[in-house]
Amino acid sequence: MTATLALGVDLGGTNARAALIDIATGRVVSANKRTHAERTPAAVVATIAAAVGEAARLAGVDPRVLGTAGIGVAGQCLGSTGTVLNAPNLGWRDIPLGELLAGALGLEVRIVNDLSAAAWGERSFGAARGVDDVALVFAGSGIGSGLILGGRLHGGGRGVAGELGHIKVAARGTTPRLCGCGEWGCLEAYAGGMNLAARLREDVAAGKAGAVLQAAGGDPGRLSASAVEAAYADGDLYARELWSEVGELIGTASANLVTLLNPLRLVLGGGILLGCAHLERIVRATIADRTLRAARRDFEVRRAELGDDAGVVGAALLGGAAHSHAQ
Amino acid sequence: MTATLALGVDLGGTNARAALIDIATGRVVSANKRTHAERTPAAVVATIAAAVGEAARLAGVDPRVLGTAGIGVAGQCLGSTGTVLNAPNLGWRDIPLGELLAGALGLEVRIVNDLSAAAWGERSFGAARGVDDVALVFAGSGIGSGLILGGRLHGGGRGVAGELGHIKVAARGTTPRLCGCGEWGCLEAYAGGMNLAARLREDVAAGKAGAVLQAAGGDPGRLSASAVEAAYADGDLYARELWSEVGELIGTASANLVTLLNPLRLVLGGGILLGCAHLERIVRATIADRTLRAARRDFEVRRAELGDDAGVVGAALLGGAAHSHAQ
Repeated sequence: MTATLALGVDLGGTNARAALIDIATGRVVSANKRTHAERTPAAVVATIAAAVGEAARLAGVDPRVLGTAGIGVAGQCLGSTGTVLNAPNLGWRDIPLGELLAGALGLEVRIVNDLSAAAWGERSFGAARGVDDVALVFAGSGIGSGLILGGRLHGGGRGVAGELGHIKVAARGTTPRLCGCGEWGCLEAYAGGMNLAARLREDVAAGKAGAVLQAAGGDPGRLSASAVEAAYADGDLYARELWSEVGELIGTASANLVTLLNPLRLVLGGGILLGCAHLERIVRATIADRTLRAARRDFEVRRAELGDDAGVVGAALLGGAAHSHAQ
Repeated sequence: MTATLALGVDLGGTNARAALIDIATGRVVSANKRTHAERTPAAVVATIAAAVGEAARLAGVDPRVLGTAGIGVAGQCLGSTGTVLNAPNLGWRDIPLGELLAGALGLEVRIVNDLSAAAWGERSFGAARGVDDVALVFAGSGIGSGLILGGRLHGGGRGVAGELGHIKVAARGTTPRLCGCGEWGCLEAYAGGMNLAARLREDVAAGKAGAVLQAAGGDPGRLSASAVEAAYADGDLYARELWSEVGELIGTASANLVTLLNPLRLVLGGGILLGCAHLERIVRATIADRTLRAARRDFEVRRAELGDDAGVVGAALLGGAAHSHAQ
């Protein structure tokens, strides 16, 4: 049997995962995931090259014959040049990743935001198959979105579109929270997993989140969205109040995105949304309640279907070229 | 000299304006504006047909040889079918305007939202000439936006994209205001001209906006954004507080749009923004302060340049076909 393969990489703060994808079916033919020894660009490029080499070896192909690779990066990427402007989880600013990787891999490289890649994966083979106007809203350790508009990935003028986590949501007259991006009042500062854990530790220290701490086994280091979800399920008032706030924030941001862009499919992804059923319910109810009626026509909310594969599948497809491969 | 002409119509709640446009220069060759006798679809279609006939007569052409017309409508329009879903200023719901007008004019007709048309006009010959990623933010009696993304007008899955005025902004724990669209907590309910006038009347009745009333000549029927602007310029505290709130709302919504979509040009339009210098200053400062840094690269805010012509120019160009015309 002959499959046409393409190479995709998902680059996060801790790991890089490379995979060869059958572009006709979206199937992951082979994959390799590696942890960065350190987060310097040189070390990360070496990790990616090793993961690519191993994934190719497992599939029995020489990676150089693939011609191109698509790389999804957890960060803000300049579309045209492959420069990573800002990747907080990697501690990177203005790193010419495209150039570095093209040299190391001997391939043409396309750099995109990881959620753009995931949106493209879900649109190709997952929860938004065949839909031309799609938004993926992702809430995990961070918050972001990937936008497919009129059948095309929307990168915006400089490739950094989709930063839903950094829209400003602080209410007037309140003191805004500081976000990991260095700005104040971002959605992610209130509702992203990393910032949520920090908030929980503050509240525990202030004696306010006892049931959540208990759900975390009494260990402040294990305070997380799952612990809030468990305390919510037990009827804890603090957890209910927090989920109501976080769910309304994520839900309102999503509803406003839909009112502004009129996608027909909204795909929910990320551990906070997909791992916390009570929170997901509040987010969905808020979207139903706060989206302009005209934008709800033929509109549907669905859970992401491809899990961790969405990023490598989308990156591989966006990477462009491909290679016929007898299996 | 030969000019290539196209026909554009701008349909508002009170008037219809038809114009023949030189598509090479964006110049309005001839125009005719008429007031609807009543707001029934039949009466409005007749008004448009008369305005089109007169504009064509002034230019010395038979409108039927133009082949197509573009119509910008102040309302939510289903892209594919030319149906107006909801046009509050006309009191319309689900009116098949495209079909009615095609019959009355004997032309192929393309219906778009009026701010989409205006954005296209500004992008073709105004404040966003040649820019591929553009947002027009308009604040007049209502609030809305027109989006050009990747060089194409973005209508969304059902043609109703751009409804910035109906994103939900009510802060948690506050009682949201009712919007003219029938939903609660919309940006337009706080910052649109019509709703602002209603708010001012309430506040005057509650004894709170004396200086604004004075600036309106003591007539509650003349309370408006201009009166607030005048009171602001005189240092009135109520006016300063109101403009600070309204400016931050419009500015934050605009900043969040830019963070999400990464346009390189934001065009400010509409009487409230362009007629109130103090408010415009607050809106611009808020945009500068609240837009994600990565999305501010090569980004610029400009005032609309085409005024009332933006809508007819953009509609004419979007309408598609054109006609060579010896002048």
